[in-house]
Amino acid sequence: MTLDYVHKVRVRYGETDQMGMVYHGNFALYFEEARTEMLRRCGITYREVEDAGILMPVREMSIRFMKGAMYDDLLSIRVQLLEKPLTRMSFNYRTFNERGILLNTATIELMFVKSDSFRPVKCPEFLLERLPAWS
Amino acid sequence: MTLDYVHKVRVRYGETDQMGMVYHGNFALYFEEARTEMLRRCGITYREVEDAGILMPVREMSIRFMKGAMYDDLLSIRVQLLEKPLTRMSFNYRTFNERGILLNTATIELMFVKSDSFRPVKCPEFLLERLPAWS
Amino acid sequence: MTLDYVHKVRVRYGETDQMGMVYHGNFALYFEEARTEMLRRCGITYREVEDAGILMPVREMSIRFMKGAMYDDLLSIRVQLLEKPLTRMSFNYRTFNERGILLNTATIELMFVKSDSFRPVKCPEFLLERLPAWS
Amino acid sequence: MTLDYVHKVRVRYGETDQMGMVYHGNFALYFEEARTEMLRRCGITYREVEDAGILMPVREMSIRFMKGAMYDDLLSIRVQLLEKPLTRMSFNYRTFNERGILLNTATIELMFVKSDSFRPVKCPEFLLERLPAWS
Repeated sequence: MTLDYVHKVRVRYGETDQMGMVYHGNFALYFEEARTEMLRRCGITYREVEDAGILMPVREMSIRFMKGAMYDDLLSIRVQLLEKPLTRMSFNYRTFNERGILLNTATIELMFVKSDSFRPVKCPEFLLERLPAWS
Repeated sequence: MTLDYVHKVRVRYGETDQMGMVYHGNFALYFEEARTEMLRRCGITYREVEDAGILMPVREMSIRFMKGAMYDDLLSIRVQLLEKPLTRMSFNYRTFNERGILLNTATIELMFVKSDSFRPVKCPEFLLERLPAWS
Repeated sequence: MTLDYVHKVRVRYGETDQMGMVYHGNFALYFEEARTEMLRRCGITYREVEDAGILMPVREMSIRFMKGAMYDDLLSIRVQLLEKPLTRMSFNYRTFNERGILLNTATIELMFVKSDSFRPVKCPEFLLERLPAWS
Repeated sequence: MTLDYVHKVRVRYGETDQMGMVYHGNFALYFEEARTEMLRRCGITYREVEDAGILMPVREMSIRFMKGAMYDDLLSIRVQLLEKPLTRMSFNYRTFNERGILLNTATIELMFVKSDSFRPVKCPEFLLERLPAWS
């Protein structure tokens, strides 16, 4: 059981660097947007998670780059949630350009912490309940 | 009476765009760094301002670009505080490259608000007292 | 005669700062996206302008901030081209949040230069011809 | 034999997010700055590498976050080059805050490509010759 979603994102000029491709660090923003939109389709907004007193800092991020993304490319980012989130929530990503070429793959793992103490907590119930693959 | 300071900042690769120059929006970061360091020389940290319950959102920013800044350039940003801050604090900037060429000029005006209500307030006393030109 | 367009942009987490609002410099990216999409609706891509050997560096940017944009806000950016571009192309912007509150107004003026020499040139004909208000 | 260097970098306000810490993607910029400065101490500028017709795109980046970096923190980034670069150049990073707390660890691997064809090439001789650990 997995949850997956394809998110489209258009490369901005200011996100490229003088190599003529998206600066590697900027993919963090694209991946953030992709997982946010996947969760929104499940009826979850990250804003709502924060309103419930929980933050989701990134614990680990790793990206393998095969090819660069170019200015104005309409990228397809395929995001997958492979396992039921317990104390961590781990997303996989694959980025494709308009011609279907795989540009990079990534894994980003987030954790759940209380916003007042930064103490780790479990994935909140209301979030779990709305994930169709595991509810 | 003015307060002025020259701050050096090195252009990062990820701050350029595919035109081969610093993306225009990134100068906001350089100017922020320049005024922060000018205030630090006066014994003021912006962190301390926030700890006192005050935020300083930007009210107005205008930049005129003459020439681009290149990757790895060690820029000199001359920042000036021209007037005693009352409800606003207005900084002027001039950016030069290593050859002394003027790249751009800017004005950024910040205001003071209470961090809980976002209500405008006057410049806090402890900040005024440490500005040598007006204390 | 004006050309105008409303572009929607969703605020990313990484575009906010610890004040809990979009960092002022990041509006450069939103405005870039808005004018790019307005031109795309006219059948012009900026990529095509660069392919024709022309770059459009920003000459002047000024933004007046009234209220902050929050994380996850779906902003409406109204972009307008007020005058026929000759050697400059000047866009006006107004940013609204989902409740219709005006957050900021801006003007950004770009120029046309040859990509090999950076010498200023006139607005290319193929661009003018596709602007419905002046063609 | 290793090459190592400690680079200091001050956190800018615009590099934090509303969690009150540096946005995870922005560490790419800090690590870039750290390896650039390490190489500069060896007499190598990345600008010079590009002038020799070679680009160094990032092939892999992985970061493990233990604690967040706060606004205005003066971070110490310890960068290490563990192996002689052949077709790849792999850097390790450890970020510490002012109190000596380890905030994160990272590995970033870059490759060498010709700037005209993007074809992979070996590490250029002039770069190898200036790396004290292997020359």
